[in-house]
Amino acid sequence: MCELLGMSANVPTDICFSFTGLVERGGNTGPHSDGWGIAFYEDKGVREFRDPAPSSDSEIAKLIKHFPIKSTIVVGHIRQANVGQVSLENTHPFVREMWGQYWTYAHNGQLSDMMDLPLQSHTPVGTTDSGRAFCWLLGEIKQHFPHPPVSIQPLWQFIKDKSAALHTKGVYNMLLSDGIHLYVYCATNLSWVTRRAPFGAASLKDIDITIDFAEETTEKDVVTVIATEPLTCDETWQQVATGSMVVFRDGELLAQL
Amino acid sequence: MCELLGMSANVPTDICFSFTGLVERGGNTGPHSDGWGIAFYEDKGVREFRDPAPSSDSEIAKLIKHFPIKSTIVVGHIRQANVGQVSLENTHPFVREMWGQYWTYAHNGQLSDMMDLPLQSHTPVGTTDSGRAFCWLLGEIKQHFPHPPVSIQPLWQFIKDKSAALHTKGVYNMLLSDGIHLYVYCATNLSWVTRRAPFGAASLKDIDITIDFAEETTEKDVVTVIATEPLTCDETWQQVATGSMVVFRDGELLAQL
Repeated sequence: MCELLGMSANVPTDICFSFTGLVERGGNTGPHSDGWGIAFYEDKGVREFRDPAPSSDSEIAKLIKHFPIKSTIVVGHIRQANVGQVSLENTHPFVREMWGQYWTYAHNGQLSDMMDLPLQSHTPVGTTDSGRAFCWLLGEIKQHFPHPPVSIQPLWQFIKDKSAALHTKGVYNMLLSDGIHLYVYCATNLSWVTRRAPFGAASLKDIDITIDFAEETTEKDVVTVIATEPLTCDETWQQVATGSMVVFRDGELLAQL
Repeated sequence: MCELLGMSANVPTDICFSFTGLVERGGNTGPHSDGWGIAFYEDKGVREFRDPAPSSDSEIAKLIKHFPIKSTIVVGHIRQANVGQVSLENTHPFVREMWGQYWTYAHNGQLSDMMDLPLQSHTPVGTTDSGRAFCWLLGEIKQHFPHPPVSIQPLWQFIKDKSAALHTKGVYNMLLSDGIHLYVYCATNLSWVTRRAPFGAASLKDIDITIDFAEETTEKDVVTVIATEPLTCDETWQQVATGSMVVFRDGELLAQL
């Protein structure tokens, strides 16, 4: 299995604190040592870092822990390989363009009978079940919505329904983003916490680090962090219900399907 | 205008030395301070680093100068903006998937009347002429070759012809790769040097650094570096002829069209 990390915020925010906790699970406090990756949206652009080396001793992970990359949406993943060898092309998150937007995707779980799912507009490069699920999902969306829909709720329901279809094939915890929304589908484990004023302090579970968000934020900031397992020990994380999808934008929960 | 940097090698090779010379032109010895980016292929995967900040004082560029990322194909770019604001989505290289391969592209020059070029399978995210040219080119290739061609020479000629069509719209110096081949089209300035045994020493033009390749390589290594302007002062660089395209694979020149 793997661990997922997502963020949605209303102002560009760095994820150094949460990422520092997550990378400990990539070889130190957790067994997820088969690579890691993280994508940061900045407006319509996306900055990607990926490494098939364990996150706990990756030079690139060190950079991200210490160099604050400010972003409104983050999709991150650390991998414990089950399907597909350890290699760069099998390292999440995966990124594809659709409708002139970059779509970013990370998956935790294992799926079977993936060859039943026909590919259309998008093709995986690697050999993971996750990469194929992503390309299938985008192909289904593109076929149903050749152009970005004017009303977005039907798209949300469509993504939820297709995610539920993937869920029937195994364990399917997923983060998906178009750079505006963050879609979170839960099969087994995904929790979130929303931080807003009045901000307090929080301590990481996986390494002895505490941060006082009051010193790092302004009163208007709203930041939601999503993770496979709660990253802090002194905040109340909410678990996404099995078989449901939540949608975040600008740090706020927009829908629960 | 911008500066391009490419590499094709028969063994995974780091580009720290050449990149160190190039980034000096991003704000120090050159005016190209509107961002930079570089993509490294490792097998079928691609590792991308992009920053809209000047390369000469970028934290991420510092990492790449000092941390040897080994790759067989590199596509790099430092930008002096003309069309399209300075932003992450306008920062080269651009990457898209086609035929289950990652295609990477960087362009130096300025093109006009780009709206004449219809988009098909791929859509730009940013607002540059370069991004549109890339998506148009991939759309043309995909329409003509819905699947990877068994015989590759017709594809090379097709890319050359479409590049020549773009060249009629302005200045078109281009690097393009599918992770196996490196395509280099020259309108004004692109030079290459191939390093092979017996290796010697070389000194950068832009900063006082000398390297002895004999200490860094084995006898079988073949490494070609392509750049807008020669990066070293004591090697013989060959200029690509105006209006022609060269194709490299495993460091060797395969074709000159």
